[in-house]
Formats: sequence, C-alpha cells, structure tokens
Amino acid sequence: MKFVARPQRLSTASATFDADFKARLHWSADTDAAIEQRVADILADVQKRGDAAVLEYTARFDGLSAPDMAALELTQADFKAAFDAIPQARRDALQAAARRVRSYHEAQKKAWGESWSYRDEDGTLLGQKVTPLDRVGIYVPGGKAAYPSSLLMNAIPAHVAGVQEIVMVVPTPVRGSVATGGAGDQAASARGERNELVLAAAYVAGVTRAFTIGGAQAVAALAYGTVTVPKVDKITGPGNAYVASAKKRVFGTVGIDMIAGPSEILVLADGSTPPDWVAMDLFSQAEHDELAQSILLCPDAAYIDAVQEAIDRLLPTLPRAGIIAKSLNGRGALILTRDMEEACAISNRIAPEHLEVSSRDPHRWEPLLRHAGAIFLGAYTSESLGDYCAGPNHVLPTSGTARFSSPLGVYDFQKRSSIIEVSEQGAQVLGTIAAELAYGEGLQAHARAAELRLKDVPPQRAQP
Amino acid sequence: MKFVARPQRLSTASATFDADFKARLHWSADTDAAIEQRVADILADVQKRGDAAVLEYTARFDGLSAPDMAALELTQADFKAAFDAIPQARRDALQAAARRVRSYHEAQKKAWGESWSYRDEDGTLLGQKVTPLDRVGIYVPGGKAAYPSSLLMNAIPAHVAGVQEIVMVVPTPVRGSVATGGAGDQAASARGERNELVLAAAYVAGVTRAFTIGGAQAVAALAYGTVTVPKVDKITGPGNAYVASAKKRVFGTVGIDMIAGPSEILVLADGSTPPDWVAMDLFSQAEHDELAQSILLCPDAAYIDAVQEAIDRLLPTLPRAGIIAKSLNGRGALILTRDMEEACAISNRIAPEHLEVSSRDPHRWEPLLRHAGAIFLGAYTSESLGDYCAGPNHVLPTSGTARFSSPLGVYDFQKRSSIIEVSEQGAQVLGTIAAELAYGEGLQAHARAAELRLKDVPPQRAQP
Repeated sequence: MKFVARPQRLSTASATFDADFKARLHWSADTDAAIEQRVADILADVQKRGDAAVLEYTARFDGLSAPDMAALELTQADFKAAFDAIPQARRDALQAAARRVRSYHEAQKKAWGESWSYRDEDGTLLGQKVTPLDRVGIYVPGGKAAYPSSLLMNAIPAHVAGVQEIVMVVPTPVRGSVATGGAGDQAASARGERNELVLAAAYVAGVTRAFTIGGAQAVAALAYGTVTVPKVDKITGPGNAYVASAKKRVFGTVGIDMIAGPSEILVLADGSTPPDWVAMDLFSQAEHDELAQSILLCPDAAYIDAVQEAIDRLLPTLPRAGIIAKSLNGRGALILTRDMEEACAISNRIAPEHLEVSSRDPHRWEPLLRHAGAIFLGAYTSESLGDYCAGPNHVLPTSGTARFSSPLGVYDFQKRSSIIEVSEQGAQVLGTIAAELAYGEGLQAHARAAELRLKDVPPQRAQP
Repeated sequence: MKFVARPQRLSTASATFDADFKARLHWSADTDAAIEQRVADILADVQKRGDAAVLEYTARFDGLSAPDMAALELTQADFKAAFDAIPQARRDALQAAARRVRSYHEAQKKAWGESWSYRDEDGTLLGQKVTPLDRVGIYVPGGKAAYPSSLLMNAIPAHVAGVQEIVMVVPTPVRGSVATGGAGDQAASARGERNELVLAAAYVAGVTRAFTIGGAQAVAALAYGTVTVPKVDKITGPGNAYVASAKKRVFGTVGIDMIAGPSEILVLADGSTPPDWVAMDLFSQAEHDELAQSILLCPDAAYIDAVQEAIDRLLPTLPRAGIIAKSLNGRGALILTRDMEEACAISNRIAPEHLEVSSRDPHRWEPLLRHAGAIFLGAYTSESLGDYCAGPNHVLPTSGTARFSSPLGVYDFQKRSSIIEVSEQGAQVLGTIAAELAYGEGLQAHARAAELRLKDVPPQRAQP
C-alpha cells in the first residue's frame, strides 16, 4: 500500500493564519464517563479486597490467570536472564544509555537536589533539607507498546534521588485478551506476553520488585498497597486511558507525574540542515501515534518544499508509514514564517514537548525560546538521540503544559522540608512581628505562642 | 461558656496503641457528588460564556451585583489606600514579614532556581534552563477567613521566581449572601465585604491585577481566561470545597498547587520547654479549624501532665476556646513514648505538616526526621513565627503528603527546559546507541534519524 503524507502548508502572512493554526493545534483529552466509572469501581474494589481483586481483574482484562499474587511477581533472576538473552550490541547500548542518563541526573541532583541553609543576623537558622521518597511505583505499559527506554528514564532518576525501593508493574496480557483487543478469557491459562527488552532494562536500571499486572488495578495496588504489593509514595510512568484516569484519582493518596497527551515535535529551521534529516525527525515523532504532532517552522519557502520532497521520498522506506502518514496529514504542519524571530514567537505559543532548533546558529535563538520541554540545539541534535541516550529525561510535558511544568527529574523523586531554628534573640524580633499580624487575623493563640517567647511577655490583647 | 479540652491520652506501651493511633489519625476528604457536578457545570459555563457567567455566579453566590467585570476589578490605588489606612504597627509588621519571606525565597532561588549545564567529553552540551511562569493566579479566600499572610506566602515566591503578572481573585461576599451562609440575593446591591488587611498585603507583595470574584467561577476565569480576566499558567492558594474541586478539574489546562487538608502540628518534646509554650503551640493549630490536628509526643509522663494542666489553665483566656476544645477533643492526642527515638519514628509515620522539635538538643533528632512539611527546631521556634515571618513558606503539605511533596516555593513558579546540543563527534557515539535501541523498540524512523547523522550512514535494517 502506498501512503502519501502532506502536512498542512500554512503561512503567517495569510489572513486566516491565526484561525488555521489554532484549528491545527487543537487537541483535547476526551473524558469518557464510562471509563471514569469503571476505574472508580476498580479502585474501590482493590482498596477493599486487595490481592483477590487484582487477581480477578488481571484474569479478566489480561487473560492471565494465577493462583496467587506471588505467581505474578518477577524475580531478579528473570531480569538477569532477559538481559543475558538479548544480543550483545543491544546489551551494550542499553548499558551505555543507562550510564549517560545516570550521569546527567547526577549533575541535576548536584545542581538542585542538595540541602541548603543559612543563618540570619540574629543567629536564626533557615533552610531546606532534601530527602528522597521512600518507595516509588513505575508503570510500564505492556505488550508491543512497551518501551524499555521509558523504564530507564523513570527508574534512573529515582535511583539517583536516593529512592530505596522501586516497584515496577508491567502487564503481560495474553494474546486474544481484552487488553490486546481480543476476546478475553478463553486464553486465560496461557502465559502472558513478556517484553524481554523491558526485563533487561529492569536489570540495568535496578528495579527492586516487579509484578506482571497493569491497568487501573495495578495503579490501585501501588496506591493503597495489598498484602503482596507494597504501598508506594508516588507513581510515575505512562499508560492508557484507564491508567491515566486511575492515576488522577489516586493523586493525593500518592504523588503522580504529569498525565501525558500525544507526543509533539516542533522544528525551527533556518534552512541549513539537510532536508532529509528534518523529514526523518518529523517522522520519528509521527511514528509514535496517529495523534502525534510534527510541525516545521521556517522562513524559507524553498527549504519547506525540499522537506516535503524528502518526506515523499523517504516515507515508503519506513515500516510505520501508515501511522506516519495519518499523523502528518491529520495533525502535521509546514509553516512559512516571516523570519526566525517570528518562528520563535510561534514556538512560545505552542510550548512544544520537543523543540529542535535546526539552525547554523542555535544559540542566537535559544534565549528567545521560553516554553519547551526539551530544546535540541543544532543539526546534529536529533530528538531521537535525546529519546534514548543523550542523558536528559525523555519524559516531558506535552500539550502546552511546558508553560508550567518540567521534564521528569531527580526533583520528582525527592521532597523538601523547611528547616527553622529561631534563636532566643531572633524570637524577640520575630515574636513582635508575628503577634501583630496574628492579632490582625484574629488568631490569638498564634499571637500568644509568639509573645510567650518574648523576654517581657506583654499582656494579652482583648481585641484583634 | 466554659470549654474543656482533653486530647486523647495514648501510650505506645499499650497493646491497643496501633489501632487507637490509627483511628485518631484517620481523616479523609469527602468527595461530595453534588458539589462535583455543580462545579463541572460552572466551569463549562464560564468557559462558554466568559464574563457574563462570572458576573451571574458572583451575583448569585456572593450577593454582589455589578454591571460588568470592570466594576469588580480592584486597582493599585485600592491597595495603597488600604495599606495607608491600617495602623502603623501593622504596616511595619507586614513589611518586615514580607522582607524576611522575600529574602528566604531569594536564597532558595539561588540554591535551586538557576540554570546549569556542562559539556561531556565529546563536546556535547547538556543542562537545563530555568524560566519563570509568565502569569499566575492567586486565590485568596474571602470574608473573615482571609489571611493576608497567605497572600504574602503565595505572591512573594512568584515574584522572586520572576513571574511578571500576578492576578489575585478574592471574593467579597455581601453579608447575608449564599457564600456567607445567608439568604442570598436580597442583599445583592450592597457592597461586598472587603478585608482591608488583604488589600494592604496585596500592596506590599505586589499584585498586578485583582478581581473581587471567588468560588469555582473565579478558578474558571483564571484557567480559561475571559475578555476581562487574563488566562494564567498556574493557580495557587487555598479555598473551600468548591474551589478545591475546581482546581482539580482545571489541572492540566493550568498548573495547580497541592489541595490542602486540615492543618496539623506535631510536637516532639523532651520535657525541657515550658509547658505553657507547648500548650499554646497546640492551641495555635487547633484554633484554625475543628478538624485541625494537634499531637504531642513525649517520653516523660509528668511533662504530659504538666502540658494538660497548662491547657486547662490557658484555654479560658482565648477567644477561640470553643473551636480549640472541639479540635483537641476530637482529633488531638498526647502520646507517651518509650523514648525520643520512638517519638521520631512515629513522627515519620505521620509525616506532619508542622513538626516542632521542642528539645534541648534538636539537632540530635533532626537527622532522624524524614517526612515533614516544616521542621521547627528548639523551644524558641514556635510554629506561629514560621506562619508569619521567619521566612520559609507557610503553605505546606498536609495529611501525610509530606511523604512525597514539598512546601510551596520559588520552584513552583518556575519550570525547566532540558538543553541538549550534540556535537558532530557526539552524534557518532550517540547515534549508534540510539539506533540500536530504537530498532529494538520497533521505531525505525527514530533509528534512521540517528543514523542519518553518522558519517558512514549504514543501510537501513529490515527487522526490528
């Protein structure tokens, strides 16, 4: 079958640009009331019945029957065996990627993850201490959509942060089960489909425990704990609509990472990069998902033509050409801008997840770029290098949330506690200020707690 | 009326301690389906009809009618007038508190809020750049529960982070309206009840714009934007059940801070602090709210008796004695522990919002304390000093969420973008690793995007 990919051509000089551009960007997460209700029921059931409920849902949705939860636990020996079984080149690549990701996150921890404090002129100590979370859960999607690189990107920052226990859940649905789109229970006694590269990645990243469960029931087990599955403090990692809904619902009981929308790439090009490279970068986003979004912004119309030509020529070489074509036709865009400054301004409106500055002089434009998950500078920095092994995290804010959120990092696996030690002298100064404001707010006990620390305790005021 | 406050007496030596303690800690946020539905409707309506909807809800719930949204905007002159009108001592206290909070958060920004980067051995640049959010919204509760100190604690870190626009919403319900528990519309033409100290704090903290709107309609206006109210990137600040529900629902469209539960204090005492001080510290938490929780952990039974005696003696002196008694009787506890080590271990189970280490030697215990919003060291460090003016933020994680979350800080008003610039040489190393893993994940376009940057581009592999 021959696929054709024609991203929408737009020009900022067009009178209808704003409306056209807005329409192309539009995406909203559907909230499906039926999914919401089913997830709420599953969470309540697991909270009440624990392991028994998890086993039942795993049999029903993944077609995977087990006598007890222990049978669904993977061991360190499983990880090691998977690692040993993959080809040498892949083993080396996995370890090299893990090493680089670890070293980047160690630098991040040094820059941002250390406790600090100072003393003011009265000898009062102020600061914050940084401590790791005790135990985190990592959700890894099952079957074919399982990405071992995602496991590295979630587990390694947790490790570097100092988290002692990392609990992985990864569904291993049986072919033909509900989870794989099949008919379900008839295959219930078969062995679930494991992704050996994910297990090998678990070996490399260092996962403490792992269970072959998934969906809302796995999120519930991690959030509430069961006899077998330990309760965690935070759950990270991507999943389908059930997983996303379950994570939102348990937020507050545990921490969660951002809920991801479809992946996006924005390429800002000045025309100096080989068009084939840019075309392949647009593809690499589009091949994830029909809803993924690939956009090129460029002030050079001839270059945009050259990229379209490269798209036409290279698309047939790719196994996922069908998905790529759907994504580019439905959500892709090649946008002609007046100049690079305007391209930067439009990029800030989008706040893209991945932003490539494919320019001869990327440092000229970087300061103008205020909102993005990750910024890839220069022609050699393809997004795919960042996805696997450059070092920075590939879990990034999507759908414009880069306006207010950040890549997954060591800081997501740490928390901070303020430290205050007021000296006797400091209490004299602060007590007077605090009491004045506390009386103003009508909180007399606050005021008196401050005043009792004064050398000359004043009489209690009657009025606020 | 005479109130009696008898926090529950517990001892860790008791056989039933675990169960008793668990029962006393128990608290869960009710989710009220009726509130959820009304909030969903209000959000949808404001998203659709903008200012007109906000005006209608403000008239209905706050009893405050206005011809247009402009009439509900407060001006810088309003802030200045409020500041000028309060007593000199209160003005000075407000400014002193703001100065200290600002200087603490500047230190925090220096420790954590700066961009960083390094080059690896191949000349590849890796790092993160830190940028402020563009515009944030701060919700300030209306009427008597309005705390000017909370406005300082929200606005100042945003300012220090570099946020250019801070939009405040503060309802000014008319006496007798739905919001104040009255009968509603009959008072609709009266002037809303403003808290002058809040306006004065807005002057001191530097608020860009402010609207006298509240509830779910104010959250919606900030999240979606209206013709008059600008759309923000993040909404922080406490509110009632409607506000909390609305914030949860707009999360993803904008960022939000944590949803707060009832406030808590835990005092770890070795018996060296005057019992009156500790009693007043327990009161200062309890006076907030009948659901607030005050707990004392101490290995000295005689000292616990002395604190109870101080409670009995001091309670009648306080205007909010009724609330304090209800809080202490319903949720308070005085717990006898075997030793201070055990007290620290119990504190870690609670992960309290406020943790006072009222000890002669607080630095001996501090390293044992792993989970807390803020740790107050030594007898002079009353929580109330931290609430108003010590410098650290008083917006802290409640209900055990200190296990995975942190005080409000400069970092909540910044976001981070990864920076990657792969050198030509780096692309040779990284490209091989990335391609190997991408083929393994079945993502050929990712693999080819990496391989096209290699000096010797290998033939495309047919198989994953």
